[in-house]
Amino acid sequence: MAPPEAGASGEDSLIARYFRPLATDPGAFNLIDDAAILQASGDDLVVTTDAIVEGVHFLPDDPPDSIARKALRVNLSDLAAKGASAAGFVMTLALRSPEDAWLEPFARGLGEDAKLFGCALLGGDTVSTPGPAMISITAFGRVPPGEMVHRHTMGAGDRILVTGTIGDAMLGLDILKGGAVAAALGNDAAARAMLIQRYRIPQPRLGLAKAVRDFASAAMDVSDGLAGDLAKLCAASHVSAVIDARSIPLSPAAEALLTRGTIGVESIVAGGDDYEILCAIPEHRVEAFVHAAGLAGVPVTAIGTVMAGSSVPRFLDAQGGELSLSRLSYSHF
Amino acid sequence: MAPPEAGASGEDSLIARYFRPLATDPGAFNLIDDAAILQASGDDLVVTTDAIVEGVHFLPDDPPDSIARKALRVNLSDLAAKGASAAGFVMTLALRSPEDAWLEPFARGLGEDAKLFGCALLGGDTVSTPGPAMISITAFGRVPPGEMVHRHTMGAGDRILVTGTIGDAMLGLDILKGGAVAAALGNDAAARAMLIQRYRIPQPRLGLAKAVRDFASAAMDVSDGLAGDLAKLCAASHVSAVIDARSIPLSPAAEALLTRGTIGVESIVAGGDDYEILCAIPEHRVEAFVHAAGLAGVPVTAIGTVMAGSSVPRFLDAQGGELSLSRLSYSHF
Repeated sequence: MAPPEAGASGEDSLIARYFRPLATDPGAFNLIDDAAILQASGDDLVVTTDAIVEGVHFLPDDPPDSIARKALRVNLSDLAAKGASAAGFVMTLALRSPEDAWLEPFARGLGEDAKLFGCALLGGDTVSTPGPAMISITAFGRVPPGEMVHRHTMGAGDRILVTGTIGDAMLGLDILKGGAVAAALGNDAAARAMLIQRYRIPQPRLGLAKAVRDFASAAMDVSDGLAGDLAKLCAASHVSAVIDARSIPLSPAAEALLTRGTIGVESIVAGGDDYEILCAIPEHRVEAFVHAAGLAGVPVTAIGTVMAGSSVPRFLDAQGGELSLSRLSYSHF
Repeated sequence: MAPPEAGASGEDSLIARYFRPLATDPGAFNLIDDAAILQASGDDLVVTTDAIVEGVHFLPDDPPDSIARKALRVNLSDLAAKGASAAGFVMTLALRSPEDAWLEPFARGLGEDAKLFGCALLGGDTVSTPGPAMISITAFGRVPPGEMVHRHTMGAGDRILVTGTIGDAMLGLDILKGGAVAAALGNDAAARAMLIQRYRIPQPRLGLAKAVRDFASAAMDVSDGLAGDLAKLCAASHVSAVIDARSIPLSPAAEALLTRGTIGVESIVAGGDDYEILCAIPEHRVEAFVHAAGLAGVPVTAIGTVMAGSSVPRFLDAQGGELSLSRLSYSHF
C-alpha cells in the first residue's frame, strides 16, 4: 500500500501525465474538476457517442496510437455526417492495467488527432476492468440552429452519394486475421499496408461537413456496412433505393481482389468500418455538391437513386440483375 | 444467419424495444438518428462522464434495475455537486449478450430514474464485449452562465460540510462480499438492507444543486472516499483542512458498528461509493446554506474547517489526536 499523498492516486497521476496536456479547452479546467463546461455560443450542440472494444472493434495487437485515433475518429465521422464541426469530446478509458508503454503512444495519438481535428479533450473517466480494454467517447459538434442533417428527410428521386472508397477496412481486417485476402495480395506490401491502415485509422470527413449541411437531404456515416446502413437510412425516411453495384467506389486494391474473385461485391457492401459519408442529394443540387466536395478535397461518387416504397434497397449488378445479400451489415447482437 | 430485414439488426431491435421509450427529449429524435441535439438555451452546459464496470463498481448479482440507477446516479451526483440541474444523458452499454431478463429491468430502472430526475436519454451505443458488462454515461446539466461550482475556489476559514451520511455504501459492499459487517449485524435485516441499498442505489443530491450554487465556495461529490476526495478538493484550492472525525455524519447502523468495534472510523472515511456532496461554505453563509438545505430536504453537517497550507487534511479523534490513515480512498490503479 503506497503512503498517502495529497490526493494523488495512481489514477490522478495517470490523468495528469497523459491526458491533461490534451485538455486545451478552457472549459476542461485542466481536468482538475468533476465536470467541464461546453459553450454552445448560439449554435445547436450535436452529441454523439461511440465505443470501441478490444477484440471487437480493434485487435489486441493494434498499435495504441491507432486505437486512440480510431476511438476518436469513429465519433468525428458521425459529426461530419450530421454536418457539424467538431467542438470537443469526453472519454471513458477502461483498462486492465495502466502500462506506460501502451498509454504513452495512446495519449500521443489521441492528442495529435485532437489537434488535427480541432476537437479537444474536455473530461473523462479512467476505470479498471478485468476484461478487454474499451474506449467510449462522447463527441460534441456545432451546427447553426436547426441545421443538423438527419436520416429521415430524404425523398424519392434524390441521388445517393458516398465519400471515399468502400470495403477497404473490411479487407484490412481480413488481412490482420490471416484470411484469404492476405494470401491473394502476395507480395504487394503497399496494398496490404493501405488496407490495414483503412481498418485501423478511419478518415472522418469533417472537411465535407459544410457541404453536407448545405446540400444533403439526409446523411449518415457508413460504419456497419454500406448495404445495412443504406437500409437504415431508407427506413428512417420511409423510402427505398436502387444502387448500381458497379458504381460503388473501390480502391485499386479492392478492385483487383474483386476482379480476381478473391472477394465478392456482396462482402464489400456488407463489410463494416468504412466510416465514409452516405448521403442523399436532390438531383438539382448534385452538381453543386460535387463541386463543393472537390473544393474540400473529398472524393464523392453517385451510386444510386432513392425510390418510393419500403422494400430493402436493391443492388444491381452489371447485367441489371439483383445481388443476393445474405447479410446486410455487422450487428453486435 | 437471419434473413435480411429493412435494417432491423438485433442491436436496432434492442434499442427500439428497450431504450426508445426513454428518449423523451425532442433532441433525441427517437434514437433513429446518429446524433442528438442538446439545447443550451442560454445556460452553460455542464458535462460529466462516469462509467461503472461489473465486478468493480457493481456486482454480477446486483439487480439490473439498481445497476442502471447507479450508472445514471453517479453522474447526476457530479452534476448536483457542480450546482447544475440535469439536462439529459447519453449511454454506452457494453454487454456479453442481450438477455431480455436482464435488459427489461435495466431499462425500466433507467427509465424510472430518468423521469424521476428529469434527465432523458439522448442517445447511446450498444456494443458486444467478451468481458464484464460496462455502462458509461455522459450526463449534461445546466447552470446560469459562469455559475458552475468548482473545486479550486475555496479559501482558509471556510467551513466544510457534507450531505447525508458517510460510510454506509462501503458497509453495504462488505455485507455483499460476506465480510465482517454481515456477521456483526446478525439478525438486523433492516440495517443490512439499508446498507446494501446505499451501496447499490446512490442518492444524487440534485435538490441541493441551487443551494450549492448560491452558497458554496467549492464542491465535489464524494465517490472514492471522504478522506481522499477532501484531499483532492484541498489540493485543487491549494489549502488544507482539519476535520473533527466525531462530527462525520453516520447512519445509526454505521454508528453501532463503530461503537461495537466492527469497523474503525479510518475505514469509514476511506470507503468509496458515498455519492454525497462535500462542499466549502464561507463562515458567514453557513446558516443560510443550512436553511436552504433544510428547505430542500437534504441533511447537511459541518465536519471541519479549511486551513491555509498544503498538508494532507487532518482528521482529529475525540481526544484531539490525529487519525492515522494508511489509505485515503479508492484508486483504480
